[in-house]
Amino acid sequence: MENPHEKFMKLAIELSRSGMMQGKGGPFGCVIVKDGKIIGQGCNSVLDTIDPTAHAEIVAIRDACKKLGDFQLEGCDIYTSCEPCPMCLGAIYWARPARVFYANTKEDAAKVGFDDQFIYEELDLPLSERKIPFSQLPNEEADKVFKEWALLNNKTLY
Amino acid sequence: MENPHEKFMKLAIELSRSGMMQGKGGPFGCVIVKDGKIIGQGCNSVLDTIDPTAHAEIVAIRDACKKLGDFQLEGCDIYTSCEPCPMCLGAIYWARPARVFYANTKEDAAKVGFDDQFIYEELDLPLSERKIPFSQLPNEEADKVFKEWALLNNKTLY
Repeated sequence: MENPHEKFMKLAIELSRSGMMQGKGGPFGCVIVKDGKIIGQGCNSVLDTIDPTAHAEIVAIRDACKKLGDFQLEGCDIYTSCEPCPMCLGAIYWARPARVFYANTKEDAAKVGFDDQFIYEELDLPLSERKIPFSQLPNEEADKVFKEWALLNNKTLY
Repeated sequence: MENPHEKFMKLAIELSRSGMMQGKGGPFGCVIVKDGKIIGQGCNSVLDTIDPTAHAEIVAIRDACKKLGDFQLEGCDIYTSCEPCPMCLGAIYWARPARVFYANTKEDAAKVGFDDQFIYEELDLPLSERKIPFSQLPNEEADKVFKEWALLNNKTLY
Protein backbone atom coordinates (compact mmCIF):
# COMPACT_ATOMS: atom_id res chain seq x y z
CA MET A 1 0.00 0.00 0.00
CA GLU A 2 1.19 3.45 -0.85
CA ASN A 3 2.35 5.54 2.09
CA PRO A 4 -0.20 8.41 2.58
CA HIS A 5 2.64 10.96 2.72
CA GLU A 6 3.83 9.76 -0.68
CA LYS A 7 0.33 9.77 -2.13
CA PHE A 8 -0.43 13.37 -1.12
CA MET A 9 3.00 14.67 -2.04
CA LYS A 10 2.66 13.01 -5.44
CA LEU A 11 -0.59 14.93 -6.01
CA ALA A 12 1.05 18.22 -4.97
CA ILE A 13 3.84 17.53 -7.46
CA GLU A 14 1.35 16.65 -10.21
CA LEU A 15 -0.33 20.02 -9.59
CA SER A 16 3.07 21.74 -9.78
CA ARG A 17 3.73 20.19 -13.20
CA SER A 18 0.26 20.72 -14.67
CA GLY A 19 0.15 24.39 -13.57
CA MET A 20 3.57 24.99 -15.08
CA MET A 21 2.67 23.24 -18.35
CA GLN A 22 -0.56 25.26 -18.64
CA GLY A 23 1.38 28.51 -18.07
CA LYS A 24 -0.51 29.33 -14.88
CA GLY A 25 2.69 30.20 -13.04
CA GLY A 26 5.84 28.64 -11.59
CA PRO A 27 6.32 24.93 -10.83
CA PHE A 28 4.60 24.78 -7.45
CA GLY A 29 1.65 22.73 -6.20
CA CYS A 30 -0.04 22.13 -2.88
CA VAL A 31 -2.74 19.93 -1.36
CA ILE A 32 -4.35 20.20 2.08
CA VAL A 33 -5.54 17.08 3.86
CA LYS A 34 -7.90 16.52 6.79
CA ASP A 35 -8.74 13.08 8.20
CA GLY A 36 -7.12 11.44 5.18
CA LYS A 37 -9.15 13.44 2.63
CA ILE A 38 -8.06 16.27 0.35
CA ILE A 39 -10.01 19.39 1.31
CA GLY A 40 -8.05 21.97 -0.69
CA GLN A 41 -5.59 22.21 -3.52
CA GLY A 42 -3.84 24.71 -5.74
CA CYS A 43 -0.98 25.46 -8.04
CA ASN A 44 0.95 28.66 -8.47
CA SER A 45 -1.41 30.90 -10.48
CA VAL A 46 0.44 34.23 -10.43
CA LEU A 47 0.40 34.60 -14.21
CA ASP A 48 -3.01 33.09 -14.82
CA THR A 49 -4.86 35.25 -12.28
CA ILE A 50 -2.49 38.27 -12.46
CA ASP A 51 -2.08 38.00 -8.70
CA PRO A 52 1.38 38.06 -7.10
CA THR A 53 -0.09 36.47 -3.96
CA ALA A 54 -1.45 33.42 -5.82
CA HIS A 55 1.27 31.03 -4.69
CA ALA A 56 0.26 27.36 -4.51
CA GLU A 57 -0.02 27.34 -0.70
CA ILE A 58 -2.17 30.50 -0.60
CA VAL A 59 -4.47 29.19 -3.35
CA ALA A 60 -4.82 25.86 -1.49
CA ILE A 61 -5.39 27.52 1.92
CA ARG A 62 -8.17 29.68 0.47
CA ASP A 63 -9.71 26.66 -1.21
CA ALA A 64 -9.61 24.55 1.96
CA CYS A 65 -11.01 27.34 4.17
CA LYS A 66 -13.89 27.92 1.76
CA LYS A 67 -14.68 24.19 1.78
CA LEU A 68 -14.44 23.88 5.57
CA GLY A 69 -16.31 27.16 6.14
CA ASP A 70 -13.59 28.06 8.65
CA PHE A 71 -10.66 30.47 8.49
CA GLN A 72 -8.58 28.04 10.54
CA LEU A 73 -7.12 24.74 9.32
CA GLU A 74 -7.16 22.93 12.63
CA GLY A 75 -5.97 19.34 12.36
CA CYS A 76 -5.02 19.72 8.69
CA ASP A 77 -1.77 18.77 6.97
CA ILE A 78 -0.28 20.80 4.13
CA TYR A 79 1.69 19.01 1.40
CA THR A 80 3.59 21.42 -0.81
CA SER A 81 6.01 20.63 -3.61
CA CYS A 82 8.49 23.24 -2.33
CA GLU A 83 9.43 24.83 0.99
CA PRO A 84 7.12 27.85 1.45
CA CYS A 85 8.31 31.42 0.82
CA PRO A 86 8.05 33.99 3.66
CA MET A 87 4.61 35.17 2.46
CA CYS A 88 3.25 31.61 2.46
CA LEU A 89 4.90 30.87 5.81
CA GLY A 90 3.03 33.84 7.24
CA ALA A 91 -0.21 32.60 5.68
CA ILE A 92 0.40 29.14 7.15
CA TYR A 93 0.83 30.60 10.64
CA TRP A 94 -2.43 32.56 10.31
CA ALA A 95 -4.25 29.42 9.07
CA ARG A 96 -2.72 27.22 11.81
CA PRO A 97 -2.59 23.74 10.23
CA ALA A 98 -1.16 20.84 12.27
CA ARG A 99 1.84 20.04 10.07
CA VAL A 100 3.59 21.03 6.83
CA PHE A 101 5.43 18.67 4.47
CA TYR A 102 7.49 19.90 1.53
CA ALA A 103 9.63 18.26 -1.17
CA ASN A 104 12.06 20.70 -2.81
CA THR A 105 13.94 23.14 -0.56
CA LYS A 106 14.22 26.90 -0.88
CA GLU A 107 17.81 26.36 -2.02
CA ASP A 108 16.50 24.18 -4.88
CA ALA A 109 14.02 26.97 -5.72
CA ALA A 110 16.78 29.59 -5.78
CA LYS A 111 18.72 27.47 -8.30
CA VAL A 112 15.81 27.66 -10.79
CA GLY A 113 15.24 31.40 -10.31
CA PHE A 114 12.94 31.80 -7.28
CA ASP A 115 15.00 33.60 -4.70
CA ASP A 116 13.12 33.89 -1.41
CA GLN A 117 16.36 34.49 0.45
CA PHE A 118 16.23 38.15 -0.51
CA ILE A 119 12.86 38.50 1.26
CA TYR A 120 14.07 36.68 4.38
CA GLU A 121 17.02 39.07 4.55
CA GLU A 122 14.80 42.13 4.11
CA LEU A 123 12.43 40.96 6.89
CA ASP A 124 15.35 40.98 9.30
CA LEU A 125 16.50 44.50 8.38
CA PRO A 126 15.35 47.64 10.21
CA LEU A 127 12.65 49.43 8.20
CA SER A 128 15.05 52.23 7.27
CA GLU A 129 17.52 49.87 5.60
CA ARG A 130 15.08 47.96 3.42
CA LYS A 131 15.14 48.06 -0.39
CA ILE A 132 11.47 49.05 -0.38
CA PRO A 133 11.23 52.01 2.02
CA PHE A 134 8.68 51.58 4.84
CA SER A 135 7.78 54.85 6.57
CA GLN A 136 5.51 55.47 9.50
CA LEU A 137 2.97 58.30 9.22
CA PRO A 138 1.60 58.32 12.79
CA ASN A 139 -2.10 59.14 12.81
CA GLU A 140 -4.48 59.86 15.68
CA GLU A 141 -7.49 58.53 13.81
CA ALA A 142 -5.76 55.18 13.19
CA ASP A 143 -5.01 54.99 16.90
CA LYS A 144 -8.66 55.75 17.63
CA VAL A 145 -9.89 52.91 15.36
CA PHE A 146 -7.69 50.44 17.28
CA LYS A 147 -9.17 51.71 20.55
CA GLU A 148 -12.67 51.27 19.11
CA TRP A 149 -11.78 47.70 18.15
CA ALA A 150 -10.55 47.00 21.68
CA LEU A 151 -13.91 48.16 23.07
CA LEU A 152 -16.06 46.39 20.49
CA ASN A 153 -18.36 43.73 21.94
CA ASN A 154 -19.07 40.33 20.35
CA LYS A 155 -16.15 40.53 17.96
CA THR A 156 -14.73 37.36 16.47
CA LEU A 157 -11.03 36.99 17.19
CA TYR A 158 -8.90 35.25 14.60
CA MET B 1 -4.32 71.99 0.41
CA GLU B 2 -4.33 68.60 2.03
CA ASN B 3 -1.04 66.76 1.94
CA PRO B 4 -1.43 63.73 -0.45
CA HIS B 5 0.08 61.43 2.18
CA GLU B 6 -2.59 62.53 4.64
CA LYS B 7 -5.34 62.17 2.07
CA PHE B 8 -4.47 58.60 1.15
CA MET B 9 -3.77 57.51 4.72
CA LYS B 10 -7.12 58.96 5.75
CA LEU B 11 -8.83 56.76 3.15
CA ALA B 12 -6.95 53.68 4.37
CA ILE B 13 -8.10 54.44 7.91
CA GLU B 14 -11.69 54.98 6.76
CA LEU B 15 -11.55 51.51 5.16
CA SER B 16 -10.17 50.07 8.41
CA ARG B 17 -13.10 51.49 10.37
CA SER B 18 -15.85 50.62 7.88
CA GLY B 19 -14.59 47.03 7.49
CA MET B 20 -14.49 46.62 11.27
CA MET B 21 -17.96 48.10 11.74
CA GLN B 22 -19.39 45.81 9.05
CA GLY B 23 -17.84 42.79 10.73
CA LYS B 24 -15.66 41.98 7.71
CA GLY B 25 -12.58 41.47 9.87
CA GLY B 26 -10.07 43.32 12.02
CA PRO B 27 -9.50 47.11 11.96
CA PHE B 28 -7.17 47.30 8.97
CA GLY B 29 -7.45 49.18 5.66
CA CYS B 30 -5.18 49.80 2.69
CA VAL B 31 -5.12 51.86 -0.51
CA ILE B 32 -2.66 51.63 -3.40
CA VAL B 33 -1.80 54.73 -5.39
CA LYS B 34 -0.20 55.24 -8.79
CA ASP B 35 0.45 58.66 -10.31
CA GLY B 36 -1.73 60.28 -7.65
CA LYS B 37 -4.70 58.00 -8.31
CA ILE B 38 -6.09 55.16 -6.22
CA ILE B 39 -5.80 51.95 -8.22
CA GLY B 40 -6.58 49.43 -5.48
CA GLN B 41 -8.08 49.23 -2.04
CA GLY B 42 -9.16 46.78 0.61
CA CYS B 43 -9.97 46.13 4.20
CA ASN B 44 -9.30 43.08 6.30
CA SER B 45 -11.92 40.55 5.12
CA VAL B 46 -10.83 37.42 6.95
CA LEU B 47 -14.25 36.83 8.53
CA ASP B 48 -16.33 38.03 5.62
CA THR B 49 -14.65 35.86 2.99
CA ILE B 50 -13.58 33.03 5.37
CA ASP B 51 -10.03 33.54 4.12
CA PRO B 52 -7.12 33.84 6.58
CA THR B 53 -5.02 35.46 3.82
CA ALA B 54 -7.53 38.30 3.24
CA HIS B 55 -5.55 40.94 5.10
CA ALA B 56 -6.11 44.53 3.92
CA GLU B 57 -2.78 44.72 2.06
CA ILE B 58 -3.33 41.40 0.25
CA VAL B 59 -6.88 42.38 -0.75
CA ALA B 60 -5.62 45.76 -2.03
CA ILE B 61 -2.65 44.24 -3.89
CA ARG B 62 -4.97 41.78 -5.66
CA ASP B 63 -7.35 44.60 -6.52
CA ALA B 64 -4.60 46.85 -7.87
CA CYS B 65 -2.97 44.09 -9.92
CA LYS B 66 -6.30 43.14 -11.49
CA LYS B 67 -6.92 46.81 -12.42
CA LEU B 68 -3.41 47.32 -13.81
CA GLY B 69 -3.40 43.94 -15.58
CA ASP B 70 0.06 43.40 -14.12
CA PHE B 71 1.36 41.21 -11.29
CA GLN B 72 3.88 43.93 -10.39
CA LEU B 73 3.10 47.26 -8.72
CA GLU B 74 5.95 49.23 -10.26
CA GLY B 75 5.89 52.88 -9.25
CA CYS B 76 3.00 52.39 -6.81
CA ASP B 77 2.72 53.52 -3.20
CA ILE B 78 0.95 51.46 -0.55
CA TYR B 79 -0.84 53.26 2.29
CA THR B 80 -1.86 50.90 5.07
CA SER B 81 -3.45 51.74 8.41
CA CYS B 82 -1.03 49.42 10.23
CA GLU B 83 2.48 48.07 9.79
CA PRO B 84 2.19 44.91 7.64
CA CYS B 85 2.42 41.41 9.18
CA PRO B 86 5.07 38.98 7.87
CA MET B 87 2.65 37.47 5.32
CA CYS B 88 1.80 40.91 3.91
CA LEU B 89 5.45 41.95 3.96
CA GLY B 90 6.20 38.92 1.81
CA ALA B 91 3.33 39.81 -0.53
CA ILE B 92 4.64 43.37 -0.78
CA TYR B 93 8.09 42.14 -1.79
CA TRP B 94 6.60 39.91 -4.48
CA ALA B 95 4.46 42.82 -5.79
CA ARG B 96 7.39 45.27 -5.67
CA PRO B 97 5.74 48.67 -5.06
CA ALA B 98 7.94 51.78 -4.78
CA ARG B 99 7.14 52.71 -1.17
CA VAL B 100 5.03 51.69 1.82
CA PHE B 101 3.48 54.06 4.36
CA TYR B 102 1.77 52.86 7.55
CA ALA B 103 0.09 54.52 10.54
CA ASN B 104 -0.19 52.18 13.55
CA THR B 105 2.83 50.04 14.41
CA LYS B 106 2.97 46.30 15.00
CA GLU B 107 3.38 47.06 18.71
CA ASP B 108 0.08 48.98 18.61
CA ALA B 109 -1.50 45.97 16.87
CA ALA B 110 -0.19 43.58 19.53
CA LYS B 111 -1.84 45.71 22.22
CA VAL B 112 -5.28 45.15 20.66
CA GLY B 113 -4.80 41.41 20.13
CA PHE B 114 -2.96 40.99 16.80
CA ASP B 115 0.38 39.50 17.66
CA ASP B 116 2.60 39.25 14.58
CA GLN B 117 5.68 39.00 16.77
CA PHE B 118 5.05 35.30 17.24
CA ILE B 119 5.27 34.78 13.46
CA TYR B 120 8.46 36.85 13.16
CA GLU B 121 10.05 34.71 15.86
CA GLU B 122 8.96 31.48 14.19
CA LEU B 123 10.39 32.58 10.83
CA ASP B 124 13.80 32.92 12.44
CA LEU B 125 13.75 29.47 14.04
CA PRO B 126 15.17 26.34 12.41
CA LEU B 127 12.37 24.23 10.91
CA SER B 128 12.74 21.58 13.61
CA GLU B 129 12.09 24.05 16.43
CA ARG B 130 8.92 25.65 15.05
CA LYS B 131 5.52 25.36 16.72
CA ILE B 132 4.07 24.08 13.44
CA PRO B 133 6.40 21.24 12.39
CA PHE B 134 7.83 21.59 8.86
CA SER B 135 9.30 18.36 7.48
CA GLN B 136 11.04 17.68 4.22
CA LEU B 137 9.95 14.66 2.18
CA PRO B 138 12.61 14.70 -0.56
CA ASN B 139 11.16 13.60 -3.87
CA GLU B 140 12.82 12.83 -7.19
CA GLU B 141 9.77 13.81 -9.20
CA ALA B 142 9.66 17.26 -7.54
CA ASP B 143 13.30 17.71 -8.44
CA LYS B 144 12.52 16.68 -12.02
CA VAL B 145 9.72 19.30 -12.31
CA PHE B 146 12.18 22.03 -11.26
CA LYS B 147 14.62 20.82 -13.92
CA GLU B 148 11.83 20.90 -16.52
CA TRP B 149 11.02 24.48 -15.48
CA ALA B 150 14.68 25.45 -15.88
CA LEU B 151 14.65 24.10 -19.44
CA LEU B 152 11.25 25.56 -20.40
CA ASN B 153 11.37 28.08 -23.24
CA ASN B 154 9.37 31.31 -23.39
CA LYS B 155 8.45 31.23 -19.74
CA THR B 156 7.43 34.44 -17.98
CA LEU B 157 9.60 35.17 -14.96
CA TYR B 158 8.03 36.91 -12.02
